Amino acid sequence: MSAIPPPFPLTYEALVRRALREDLGRAGDLTTDALIADRHVEARIVVREAGRVAGLPVAAAAFRLLDATVAFEACTSEGCDVAPGTTLARLRGPARPILAAERTALNFLGRLCGIATATARAVAAVQGTRARIACTRKTTPGLRALEKYAVRLGGGANHRFGLDDGVLIKDNHLRLAGSLAAAVERVRLRVGHMVKIEVEVDSLEQLRQAAALGVDAVLLDNFGVAELREAVRLAEGKVLLEASGGITLEDVAQVAATGVHVISLGWLTHSAPALDVALEVT
Amino acid sequence: MSAIPPPFPLTYEALVRRALREDLGRAGDLTTDALIADRHVEARIVVREAGRVAGLPVAAAAFRLLDATVAFEACTSEGCDVAPGTTLARLRGPARPILAAERTALNFLGRLCGIATATARAVAAVQGTRARIACTRKTTPGLRALEKYAVRLGGGANHRFGLDDGVLIKDNHLRLAGSLAAAVERVRLRVGHMVKIEVEVDSLEQLRQAAALGVDAVLLDNFGVAELREAVRLAEGKVLLEASGGITLEDVAQVAATGVHVISLGWLTHSAPALDVALEVT
Amino acid sequence: MSAIPPPFPLTYEALVRRALREDLGRAGDLTTDALIADRHVEARIVVREAGRVAGLPVAAAAFRLLDATVAFEACTSEGCDVAPGTTLARLRGPARPILAAERTALNFLGRLCGIATATARAVAAVQGTRARIACTRKTTPGLRALEKYAVRLGGGANHRFGLDDGVLIKDNHLRLAGSLAAAVERVRLRVGHMVKIEVEVDSLEQLRQAAALGVDAVLLDNFGVAELREAVRLAEGKVLLEASGGITLEDVAQVAATGVHVISLGWLTHSAPALDVALEVT
Amino acid sequence: MSAIPPPFPLTYEALVRRALREDLGRAGDLTTDALIADRHVEARIVVREAGRVAGLPVAAAAFRLLDATVAFEACTSEGCDVAPGTTLARLRGPARPILAAERTALNFLGRLCGIATATARAVAAVQGTRARIACTRKTTPGLRALEKYAVRLGGGANHRFGLDDGVLIKDNHLRLAGSLAAAVERVRLRVGHMVKIEVEVDSLEQLRQAAALGVDAVLLDNFGVAELREAVRLAEGKVLLEASGGITLEDVAQVAATGVHVISLGWLTHSAPALDVALEVT
Amino acid sequence: MSAIPPPFPLTYEALVRRALREDLGRAGDLTTDALIADRHVEARIVVREAGRVAGLPVAAAAFRLLDATVAFEACTSEGCDVAPGTTLARLRGPARPILAAERTALNFLGRLCGIATATARAVAAVQGTRARIACTRKTTPGLRALEKYAVRLGGGANHRFGLDDGVLIKDNHLRLAGSLAAAVERVRLRVGHMVKIEVEVDSLEQLRQAAALGVDAVLLDNFGVAELREAVRLAEGKVLLEASGGITLEDVAQVAATGVHVISLGWLTHSAPALDVALEVT
Amino acid sequence: MSAIPPPFPLTYEALVRRALREDLGRAGDLTTDALIADRHVEARIVVREAGRVAGLPVAAAAFRLLDATVAFEACTSEGCDVAPGTTLARLRGPARPILAAERTALNFLGRLCGIATATARAVAAVQGTRARIACTRKTTPGLRALEKYAVRLGGGANHRFGLDDGVLIKDNHLRLAGSLAAAVERVRLRVGHMVKIEVEVDSLEQLRQAAALGVDAVLLDNFGVAELREAVRLAEGKVLLEASGGITLEDVAQVAATGVHVISLGWLTHSAPALDVALEVT
Repeated sequence: MSAIPPPFPLTYEALVRRALREDLGRAGDLTTDALIADRHVEARIVVREAGRVAGLPVAAAAFRLLDATVAFEACTSEGCDVAPGTTLARLRGPARPILAAERTALNFLGRLCGIATATARAVAAVQGTRARIACTRKTTPGLRALEKYAVRLGGGANHRFGLDDGVLIKDNHLRLAGSLAAAVERVRLRVGHMVKIEVEVDSLEQLRQAAALGVDAVLLDNFGVAELREAVRLAEGKVLLEASGGITLEDVAQVAATGVHVISLGWLTHSAPALDVALEVT
Repeated sequence: MSAIPPPFPLTYEALVRRALREDLGRAGDLTTDALIADRHVEARIVVREAGRVAGLPVAAAAFRLLDATVAFEACTSEGCDVAPGTTLARLRGPARPILAAERTALNFLGRLCGIATATARAVAAVQGTRARIACTRKTTPGLRALEKYAVRLGGGANHRFGLDDGVLIKDNHLRLAGSLAAAVERVRLRVGHMVKIEVEVDSLEQLRQAAALGVDAVLLDNFGVAELREAVRLAEGKVLLEASGGITLEDVAQVAATGVHVISLGWLTHSAPALDVALEVT
Repeated sequence: MSAIPPPFPLTYEALVRRALREDLGRAGDLTTDALIADRHVEARIVVREAGRVAGLPVAAAAFRLLDATVAFEACTSEGCDVAPGTTLARLRGPARPILAAERTALNFLGRLCGIATATARAVAAVQGTRARIACTRKTTPGLRALEKYAVRLGGGANHRFGLDDGVLIKDNHLRLAGSLAAAVERVRLRVGHMVKIEVEVDSLEQLRQAAALGVDAVLLDNFGVAELREAVRLAEGKVLLEASGGITLEDVAQVAATGVHVISLGWLTHSAPALDVALEVT
Repeated sequence: MSAIPPPFPLTYEALVRRALREDLGRAGDLTTDALIADRHVEARIVVREAGRVAGLPVAAAAFRLLDATVAFEACTSEGCDVAPGTTLARLRGPARPILAAERTALNFLGRLCGIATATARAVAAVQGTRARIACTRKTTPGLRALEKYAVRLGGGANHRFGLDDGVLIKDNHLRLAGSLAAAVERVRLRVGHMVKIEVEVDSLEQLRQAAALGVDAVLLDNFGVAELREAVRLAEGKVLLEASGGITLEDVAQVAATGVHVISLGWLTHSAPALDVALEVT
Repeated sequence: MSAIPPPFPLTYEALVRRALREDLGRAGDLTTDALIADRHVEARIVVREAGRVAGLPVAAAAFRLLDATVAFEACTSEGCDVAPGTTLARLRGPARPILAAERTALNFLGRLCGIATATARAVAAVQGTRARIACTRKTTPGLRALEKYAVRLGGGANHRFGLDDGVLIKDNHLRLAGSLAAAVERVRLRVGHMVKIEVEVDSLEQLRQAAALGVDAVLLDNFGVAELREAVRLAEGKVLLEASGGITLEDVAQVAATGVHVISLGWLTHSAPALDVALEVT
Repeated sequence: MSAIPPPFPLTYEALVRRALREDLGRAGDLTTDALIADRHVEARIVVREAGRVAGLPVAAAAFRLLDATVAFEACTSEGCDVAPGTTLARLRGPARPILAAERTALNFLGRLCGIATATARAVAAVQGTRARIACTRKTTPGLRALEKYAVRLGGGANHRFGLDDGVLIKDNHLRLAGSLAAAVERVRLRVGHMVKIEVEVDSLEQLRQAAALGVDAVLLDNFGVAELREAVRLAEGKVLLEASGGITLEDVAQVAATGVHVISLGWLTHSAPALDVALEVT
């Protein structure tokens, strides 16, 4: 059982409503409306491949927002690992909203389970090291909060949620702002006391400078494994180290073994394949 | 050069605005705001792997909506195939909006290019057959119109955009509505003369019935290649045939070779990996 | 009793909320707020002239969205024909939301009943022929889905819901796109397999061409009755024929008698007078 | 030339955007997109029957919001009377947005011209009397501001825009609030000094009471012509009189001749037939 | 106990939702989500200084919109005067939504109580005179309806809610429109019979003109007390007089003693300090 | 000249649009529309009391969004101190939108200048100490980003923008979550590496614990000056100290003199009086 609380419905219901309207269009579900009058049905949502569950409250919202009388009973918990064929939820209620909301619910569920599953695999791969797996801002436009929640369910950590909840000085900034020292000093004068400062570096020399400036974290961009090991040695106890850039599920364990604190993976959110989920009228 | 017109900005600008606000949050781009005052810059968007271009007007909108003085010049056309390292667009203008809109623009662009690229590969795989590659309704909630546009740029065709622009009688409907004949008759009485009717079947016997009823198309769900071949023989000249269900890039050519008219692939939109695109200040 | 399911509230509640806010303004119902404190009342909605009922769920939503404790009990069904003086619904609950939502509820109800009634009259006029009465896209901005639903309740059929759920090649297109044959071929290459193609023609010669091209339907624009009869003879068994343009309730029977399959009437939605409905506190 | 200023675009552009999206749906203008690439065209909007012009800025907005490069040149002014065949506006620009926005623009224009035309007829009918023609709150949900503007262009006056910009004590209120005197006193204590108070009466006796209470106006509900004449005699110089309820274009002159100050007509907005307008590519 | 009905939730829930989303951001309540799982709590909202209560239904909505299972029980009524330490409301329910909505609820409540309290003080100061205290349009953008409701709870009256529910001819208008007589005549021709007309004057001479023109009210801008007294003498029985401009709580009694009918105070809404309210878990 | 960049218009234009619509209502500016046709005017915005400028881009947006042809020229910079009578901006353009947007523009400007002015006074009061003045989350619902920007222009720093960009463990949390040590440990496991952790304490003993746990900051709630001095001595070099709770402009210097790093003041945003600004047609 996961103890990670889901986002409040208030924060995602507008998104689900837009998705339902996107699928219903102006004329609604032509097929169901023509064929099925007032039938009540039972149905279940099953997963067809192994994975980590994420998104059941969002899927439930899709049915509830179309018709509040649809009963949605989750059969697993968010954050659980499930085998192929597992029933994730049971539905009972009028056939019309259940069939009309089906695709919208599954589109959310498949995507969020996909992200949680991908994250869980990366987390499993680094088990035994101190490295935390983190996601990035490379998320689906409009779905960031939900996708970052799926990452948490996968056992991963969240990096910044946006440009406004942390400072990350990148190469483009340095090119325009001059020296690292000047940049860090300037940022400190400007941001409030609750904002952390991370610096992206592409050499050990830059790492040394950053550590000396007392920043909160350093992002090691596209460092090889040997370089990462050296970075860890250099920075130990001085600054948190994040490895990033082109790290795959295959080499994440090796990267973690270098001793970095955080490994951030863009593909958790931008390229994780959807998990195969389906609704079956029973 | 592609002649497929992009959606009108009116239909996706609200989406881009929401995505920008999602990334800017309440406090905006803390890093850029602290470091970079009134600098003007030039930048370019480059692609780091081979693929099919889709989404440049959407990326352009991200910059324009933040600051109308940013000049965005596309260097390739929508629907082109590009090599790694290709410059997709050049930007010129104030550094602040360019850096602040960067991630939003790239998140749209990477996803749409990813879908167009996956589609183009599937289309290439079936070249020489009469089969058209089509997408499904398994799209990202809220992004359907853009994702279906990316499919068109990839050379694919669009299946239904929603529940309301075509009838597709599926197994769940039949279970509730009784016989296929009764269902088709009932639908005909209900829908307007501009609506096509497709029926999902899972056996050749069902296909025979459907064809006899004069429906516009039949979806052959999870048919094996041999069965598909038999279906084509049976239905030739009578009804359009669509193959669907678990077809991968590897076996799509074999499916196409059976003579089906349409092959629909959910993964074009729900699981295509994002194309790797980046913005570089020059 | 009609078996035509109403649109899901999700698809029209935003519209009803906007209408309520439009009437309440910033200061709310000055009169009721000053005069009536906590009184509970009973009220009924009556119709003052004969007609076809449409819009009760929308009217109910107006009261419910203002105060969920208002009980709204429909006394007739959607799609019924009613005599003057018939009670359409009974309300029970706090006086304040009932009086405040009254005008909004009636404005929806009067308009939708008006459209259903006009449609029912046209449908009655063509009884005994094979012609279906259809509406057009000449609807009130923002109310299309509801108005087309009222047409269905009136016994009419729905033509396209928008520019995107069917192809209709009109004279303006042909003027710009060249020959009919070229246009149809080009459209076929572009649109998906679930899209029907209709062509507007203004002569029998054009009808012949269109039928030969195998399009799904032909719109005969402003044809006289004799010409329509000839068109039916020409096209029989080859293509669906739609008569359109300036057809009134007076001459619709004559048009139907020609044998056309569909008669589309813009005035069903753009000029049907509202049915006279009122709310009475009892 | 009319000197009645149109509403600010800020107040109706959201409405026009929703109408455009309603017509474009998810897939956009299938026909135009398939047939017409980059053609520039000239077009004109013509009116096919005599009427009063209203809504040109709204129609212009439909084209502008889809593509700001479309040039829209009004050929008549708001509030003018035009003969059948008159060109209301000329358009020049890319064919695609002009054809895609056509129906939306015409739907607004036809309705608003229809209301202005109906109003102008009623105003003409009462010429030579002191009666002003006024509209009611029986407007299309969401379009009230535009429809009341059309009434002004027709030469009519606007009654309340909503429940919040004036007090109108009706029979339902009196039934719940007790005596007229008590109701008026109570309202006076509650509302601000900028709010007028009108009372609906259904007898001369009630009129006497209302006049004695010093209210600003009295609505004479469903009074016959003789009764109205008597009411005018009674109330002269004491209170403004409004006649309302079932007054048609045929009998409005007779009502005006009684000397009432205002005649309010619900059908100006809820049942005025649309004026026939069309767009022609030239 | 106050009998002033609160605005319908429909008119302010969108505002409360936006405020909740503003505080929750994308990641939600990091602190509570990490620390508190499924605990149920009791809490109370207390006021720490003396004042007039306003906004309890809005505060309740903040909790309800986040989680409908939170029980909110008001312990005082809107419009009551309370002593420091008074419990305004008790809450019972899951800890998570209660803590997450706390700040939003208090921000509304503190502001509305602050306005009601300031108004009540001004009203108390003029007791014994005929002067009513009124607010202006100098309100917080987006909160006007709620702030004007708080003024009513404070015993004050509402001036115009906007530019559209009354005519107020100010100096800027006169400078552009010519003579007062011409302006008033022109306005009368244009606005409906339910609209009052007020004129801003800055001299007794102008007051004389305005009164002679029969306007409904005159705003005496920045008149000294002696001048106001003279104005009252001049206008008695002819026109309603409103004093405005730089009147403080200290001198409001003196102004009221002159006999003006209305005293409008911008600071009731633009500068009233928030009342100190807090939530305590019990 | 201030180098603090204003928020992007994209983030506040919806707010300004809502404010304009709130003031215009359904009928628009009745007075101006009746009196002033096509006049062009010049006008200026003046400040009538000394203060710090904030909000000119927002005021400019109010005019621009109503009519893009209005020229708005700022005569001072954001963050400047101005004397009474200073012209803040000059406007030139059609009279109608200038008069119609006046109140909305001034309502934003007066409030934001008020906050910046209050902040600047507090900042001036602590000059010579190391203390930074910070705002809180006690902001106007919906205006947080703008109000925090005004604080920055006043020379203050921003505390958290919401519940999601920093952890602040308060007494309510501790009561529910058990020991401070357990709470801090639990939070560390949950939040990402870019999130700072602050703890609210109400005794020196709690401060010692918090400092020992290595949190980023400690909020000293309602500490007296002597206690604060002791806290500074205890915590020096170990943790950042924030004083909060009931600190006024009068005693802020004394608090700052204790050596705390941050002083947070709720009244900067919830109770700062608006600055008196006006628009004059010239």
